Amino acid sequence: MSPLRAITLSEVAIHDSFWSPRIDVNREFTLPIEYEQLKKTGRIDAWKLRWKKGQPNPPHPFWDSDLAKWLESVAYSLMTRPDKRLERRADQVIELIHRAQQADGYLNTHFIQVRLQERWTNLRDDHELYCAGHLMEAAVAYQQATGKTRFLEVLCRYADHIDKVFGPRKGQLKGYPGHEEIELALVKLFRATQEERYLDLARFFIDERGGSPHYFDQEARKRGDPRKVEYSYYQAHSPVREQKDAVGHAVRACYLYAGMADVAMETEDPSLMKACKMLWNSIELKRMYITGGIGSTHHGERFTEDYDLPNEEAYAETCASIALVFFAHRMLQAEKDSKYADVLERALYNGVITGVSLDGKGFFYGNPLAAHPSAKGILPHVLQPQRQPWFGCACCPPNIARLIASLGNYIYGRKGKELYLHLYVGSSVLQTFPGGPVRIRQTTQYPWKESVVVDIATETPQSFTLAFRLPGWCRNPKIRLNGKSVALNPITGKGYAKIHRRWKNGDRVKLFFPMPVERVESHPLVRHNAGRIALQRGPIVYCLEEEDNGKNLYDLRLARASRITASFKKDLLGGIVVLRAKARRRDLSTWKNDLYQVQSTKLIPARILAIPYAVRANRSVGEMIVWIQEDPGGKK
Amino acid sequence: MSPLRAITLSEVAIHDSFWSPRIDVNREFTLPIEYEQLKKTGRIDAWKLRWKKGQPNPPHPFWDSDLAKWLESVAYSLMTRPDKRLERRADQVIELIHRAQQADGYLNTHFIQVRLQERWTNLRDDHELYCAGHLMEAAVAYQQATGKTRFLEVLCRYADHIDKVFGPRKGQLKGYPGHEEIELALVKLFRATQEERYLDLARFFIDERGGSPHYFDQEARKRGDPRKVEYSYYQAHSPVREQKDAVGHAVRACYLYAGMADVAMETEDPSLMKACKMLWNSIELKRMYITGGIGSTHHGERFTEDYDLPNEEAYAETCASIALVFFAHRMLQAEKDSKYADVLERALYNGVITGVSLDGKGFFYGNPLAAHPSAKGILPHVLQPQRQPWFGCACCPPNIARLIASLGNYIYGRKGKELYLHLYVGSSVLQTFPGGPVRIRQTTQYPWKESVVVDIATETPQSFTLAFRLPGWCRNPKIRLNGKSVALNPITGKGYAKIHRRWKNGDRVKLFFPMPVERVESHPLVRHNAGRIALQRGPIVYCLEEEDNGKNLYDLRLARASRITASFKKDLLGGIVVLRAKARRRDLSTWKNDLYQVQSTKLIPARILAIPYAVRANRSVGEMIVWIQEDPGGKK
Repeated sequence: MSPLRAITLSEVAIHDSFWSPRIDVNREFTLPIEYEQLKKTGRIDAWKLRWKKGQPNPPHPFWDSDLAKWLESVAYSLMTRPDKRLERRADQVIELIHRAQQADGYLNTHFIQVRLQERWTNLRDDHELYCAGHLMEAAVAYQQATGKTRFLEVLCRYADHIDKVFGPRKGQLKGYPGHEEIELALVKLFRATQEERYLDLARFFIDERGGSPHYFDQEARKRGDPRKVEYSYYQAHSPVREQKDAVGHAVRACYLYAGMADVAMETEDPSLMKACKMLWNSIELKRMYITGGIGSTHHGERFTEDYDLPNEEAYAETCASIALVFFAHRMLQAEKDSKYADVLERALYNGVITGVSLDGKGFFYGNPLAAHPSAKGILPHVLQPQRQPWFGCACCPPNIARLIASLGNYIYGRKGKELYLHLYVGSSVLQTFPGGPVRIRQTTQYPWKESVVVDIATETPQSFTLAFRLPGWCRNPKIRLNGKSVALNPITGKGYAKIHRRWKNGDRVKLFFPMPVERVESHPLVRHNAGRIALQRGPIVYCLEEEDNGKNLYDLRLARASRITASFKKDLLGGIVVLRAKARRRDLSTWKNDLYQVQSTKLIPARILAIPYAVRANRSVGEMIVWIQEDPGGKK
Repeated sequence: MSPLRAITLSEVAIHDSFWSPRIDVNREFTLPIEYEQLKKTGRIDAWKLRWKKGQPNPPHPFWDSDLAKWLESVAYSLMTRPDKRLERRADQVIELIHRAQQADGYLNTHFIQVRLQERWTNLRDDHELYCAGHLMEAAVAYQQATGKTRFLEVLCRYADHIDKVFGPRKGQLKGYPGHEEIELALVKLFRATQEERYLDLARFFIDERGGSPHYFDQEARKRGDPRKVEYSYYQAHSPVREQKDAVGHAVRACYLYAGMADVAMETEDPSLMKACKMLWNSIELKRMYITGGIGSTHHGERFTEDYDLPNEEAYAETCASIALVFFAHRMLQAEKDSKYADVLERALYNGVITGVSLDGKGFFYGNPLAAHPSAKGILPHVLQPQRQPWFGCACCPPNIARLIASLGNYIYGRKGKELYLHLYVGSSVLQTFPGGPVRIRQTTQYPWKESVVVDIATETPQSFTLAFRLPGWCRNPKIRLNGKSVALNPITGKGYAKIHRRWKNGDRVKLFFPMPVERVESHPLVRHNAGRIALQRGPIVYCLEEEDNGKNLYDLRLARASRITASFKKDLLGGIVVLRAKARRRDLSTWKNDLYQVQSTKLIPARILAIPYAVRANRSVGEMIVWIQEDPGGKK
């Protein structure tokens, strides 16, 4: 295995018409309002350790993770845009965290204040290791962003403590978290510190998982807890190398799988990588929404069965799509295969960013692929059709904030003299090759326009390879180098076209990715989409909203022959390409009062206007569908 | 108002190829196994009042109602088929009930043993009046069946007690039940005893409902219960005469509406009948499945919104369809309009009897209109795709038993010299007119065959009217009297063709109701059925099962032009008419591994075989659908 190195955020400057506004809004609005929410709900003051038994609002087991993700977001934001005020605010919080740390290194606001004696007694349910992992990720990011070491030192002490408590030696606990996350965090900590023990501990948690006798039962017995649980909810139904289907809680699953891929890469463990690939295929080929959403049901926020992808009842938690991005990114680095970038892109441009409004102030927790106001009464809070300012279980808002703030991490990859372009985002990256530094600059209006220009700036000509991703959605990509057409066939493998040459200053590569509007159908076993198609253009999945199409979207029928036009609307929803087509619908005016009647309705002409799913629910609350009924009998 | 009188069970003899086997199985298998379940679960021994605090399995607040419905079923069964052993068993149980009655008349196994001091303190949640109502219904039926008065006397004492506790006078509670049922039961008790106080009490409960200040809040305050509830769940959000939509728990709703219709008829209250009609329309025109199922969601077993009729997630509780039959029957008697009989028949032949297996031993609580094994994991127990021998909340099995045992109640109606034929069931009824008794006999293989023969036997010719229901599903009914065609137009009103004449012995009416297979579509606002049709022949709604059609039923497409043939299969599922047609489905063999692909699949020929929904799930457990995708592009 010789994985790609992710090019870190600080090496990449983004200047992109699609992403820069999102990143600015994230910094200017989302981060401050999240801080206010964290403050208001007690998640910051909890670190002052002033809560006493009997007082209201005890620190909750999840709270530390919410704050940690906010700190991580701040770190990424500081890497690309220094902000003294924001940094001071973060420093203050970190100081609280530092002071809260116990003498033995332990660090968890809930347990320290609410039930100190019960530390590490319920790994299955208590989220201690999960919170620890998020704090570690934040600490690593903050050190990279600011050079300040305090936060990282605190978390190393905590990691050392955990490394004492857990492990293979006598007297150590042989457990692993019910909510995974610490595995990938420990790998980050290892990479930041080169402390092998952290990598070993990550591997320990992964290797112990699902063993027999079952740790969750052992610790439950000690607690006197007779409750039987379904191990698969926690991805603990078998050792991870024997797991074949992506199961259980979708966020936990993909955090685990990302950690497994990290450990497999770092330890060169082919059996672990093989399991990752198997689990990946389970998701990509059988358990993923077209938006990159995963986890079909809000009952347990989990995967259900192969091809079980209901639309209106879809959960597709924002955090789960983010976790899928993490997993995809690791697999992409390990395998250098663009199929992983395709899913990463699908999730990022659709299922992830739909989770936050264009103004950065409203969030979705669940992201169904159809919405209808009449379902409101029976939907849980997290699936309501209007965006929310915050959630009691507040995992999603800071998660999306950290992903948007760290977008620069996902655009490029490097291995030796190969520079990979995974995502097409207006940006420039400075890379050093043996002959000196080279700046590679992308200019594009992707995903709305079909071309990407890549310019090379170097003082002296240099030999290296540029590997351009040929998106899986694109059926006829073209590349021109300094105005001349490049034959793709001889240079393409695993979805990347590799141009190796002695690059000189001013070299220009033009990529052309035709974006016809595609009618996409689901696997015939996806019963929820039988007879329906989705519209996709480039990486963007479209939806119909009531605002543009009136009520009763389910009854619209789009003929296979109907021409669909795409046009850029500058003033709509921040500037988007909309799709328009002629369609048909039943004539409501001729329907008698009855609820059922012998088939007799006529179809009448209708027009549809589709907008990207990612910008849904930024106007009025109403119906929305992604999968449109097909009208095989319809004409142009 | 001059309502029809229902002709009671004891006057009707059923000899019907469709129903007699169901009634026999109900008597021979369902009633005995239900007795065993009642015994095994403690519902009979509870009446011995031996349970003491701290013992396991305390009598549950619902239990009395389950036993009561079994006793009522036994009573109906004895009316048409005496059975000494069964009667002795019932007598023994009734003796226990008699002995359990408290000195003041109170009678409830849960409260007497578990929390005597809390009687009548939580009408909203505690089901006391509900259980009382079911016991009253059973007692009335048992007296009618056997002539024995003890059970009725016990329940009159209980009703007298309730009449003292509740009422408009000072010191009386101004409450009403959270689970309605006693309203219609008190009207039965009034009819059986002619005691006006019972009718007054029924009216009191109905009139008080939803008043302000709200009784549920008042009693909750007294209990120190701060919980806020949604009144509409209990149909208590406004006075009943102001209610327009059928809302809340569907069984409670229809029990209430049936009681309202009873009271409106008995007291000649047009404002109450007007409310009944409004609520009826809400159900019939906006909130009812094609099977006569009602209550779209298992979250609260309730009505949701207009046109919200999901299929796989449908609740459509068996009890709710039975309650709809009760409501329909009252409305039919009040209005003498066949539209009520149409819904009664729809529910009875589809949504009700699907709740019990052909062998009488397996039950459905929820009756979704589509089933898929992959949904199993997230469905509650009561919505599992395989039939169950019993339920913890066991309302449905004895409810369906009493309905099947009392089928004879629903076939005919009488008003003065008019005899109504509501349902076409092989049966004979003896009616006395001024000139003496007349026997009217139906011979038919309805619902499989299209003709019904009605023969008149009378010693002397007599003048009276026979009112034949012209089923709403039938577009071209024909009637011949003694071989001669009868012009329907001049004699038809409100869906009944009335033949008034001097009937003589040997007169024969032949009814002919053509039963082409109909493609039924839903109102365009029923989003779940957009682009789909259901097959119906006569009153029978069809479904596709995996057993006959293979997997992936959702992907089958039936062209509008495809010919559908109907044929009787004697040996299948007790003898049914099956439907066959050519259809199409996507070619799975050409599908690549992907979950999504640009539309390219071809449709290949397939064949479908549909069976009545009522007999679904009597073979293997698998997929099932009612609403079939339409293939507007398909050929014959």
